[in-house]
Amino acid sequence: MSDLAERPVLYSYWRSSASWRVRIAMNLKKIQFEYKAVNLLKGEQKSEEHTKLNPSSAIPVLVIDGNVLCQSISILEYLEETRSEGNHLLPKDPYQRSVVRNIVQMIASDTSPIQNLRVLNKVSNDFGEQHKLKWAKDVIEAGLKPVEQVLRTSSSSGQYCVGDQVSLADLCLVPQVYNAKRFNVDMEQFPKIKEINDNLMKIKEFIEAHPDNQPDAVSQ
Amino acid sequence: MSDLAERPVLYSYWRSSASWRVRIAMNLKKIQFEYKAVNLLKGEQKSEEHTKLNPSSAIPVLVIDGNVLCQSISILEYLEETRSEGNHLLPKDPYQRSVVRNIVQMIASDTSPIQNLRVLNKVSNDFGEQHKLKWAKDVIEAGLKPVEQVLRTSSSSGQYCVGDQVSLADLCLVPQVYNAKRFNVDMEQFPKIKEINDNLMKIKEFIEAHPDNQPDAVSQ
Repeated sequence: MSDLAERPVLYSYWRSSASWRVRIAMNLKKIQFEYKAVNLLKGEQKSEEHTKLNPSSAIPVLVIDGNVLCQSISILEYLEETRSEGNHLLPKDPYQRSVVRNIVQMIASDTSPIQNLRVLNKVSNDFGEQHKLKWAKDVIEAGLKPVEQVLRTSSSSGQYCVGDQVSLADLCLVPQVYNAKRFNVDMEQFPKIKEINDNLMKIKEFIEAHPDNQPDAVSQ
Repeated sequence: MSDLAERPVLYSYWRSSASWRVRIAMNLKKIQFEYKAVNLLKGEQKSEEHTKLNPSSAIPVLVIDGNVLCQSISILEYLEETRSEGNHLLPKDPYQRSVVRNIVQMIASDTSPIQNLRVLNKVSNDFGEQHKLKWAKDVIEAGLKPVEQVLRTSSSSGQYCVGDQVSLADLCLVPQVYNAKRFNVDMEQFPKIKEINDNLMKIKEFIEAHPDNQPDAVSQ
């Protein structure tokens, strides 16, 4: 396994929300890594080579510390537990941690997986290509509505999702807002999310992790 | 907030997978709690009273330590961080923790939310009632396939998902298997999952948390 012990390798796709979350974390934790592009549109995630790494045929996959890690949220928790350099991405207080993880799951469980490429392809195959965009828009709107509510009413929110420290919640929010815009969701209905997203997109590590700044980005 | 400082209250629905996960954790952690039923079929999760607790109009909600916690995975992590009594539900080693959380997210992000009541209602509303069952079955099969693969090939799996200690992965697996059976998924194609599920369903805390043993259970 000596080849696993070198510089971390991130298997990523430029537009994947889940990959973007991990890219931000790697930047904030100041971990240098090698970027390996997996083209989801070409089905490279289903190749024998990739499914050996991750039987879910999904990205991101992070090879680090001699181990292969899958699932973005699991990877983020691992980085937080093992890397003390750079930003801490969870508060110390257990309740505040649960506030962060609540927002994380509202996005990473209740929104993003229901509008990802796999599900949109299923909608298209089962019911017709013409339903894809509306499905994605509906799901994202339904998902962001309670997030807006939580951010507006929580005593915890500040410049970012939870106070003035960047947390795992922010790493999930930004890619979800990007998806919302792609699928023509009117962000004016979510002013608090918009404000926090704008604050976050001023941060170097978020900008560098943006899809357009990845080696496999395709110009539109 | 003195009314929040008493015995924990779990807002739950007997058949909800996410509620079931938390019920198992409460049992394993030996935390006594008051059960408040929220009838999803009657739309009680959308009541003003409930959305004040949880803007996502979802269950479970756990009122504990003077705080209102939402999202099952966030609640499980909170209980693990704050309760030393009873079983530990995450291993100590960071890599093993990531193995647990990988399986957790494969189920709690990539499978369960795409076949829950909300999405099935959307499928029904958008495309017709007759598509609901097939959608759920497809999603569960696609979700469990890589879980089976991971459990079979991982050096970590044992009597339970990760070794011989019950972990958060097991709390997610059992309710998902129950759903699989409800939607006529042939479990013979997932022998390792079946074996681990059978082992888990011998444990008192899992049995007591089973939907049929809840106060709001409806006999079929």
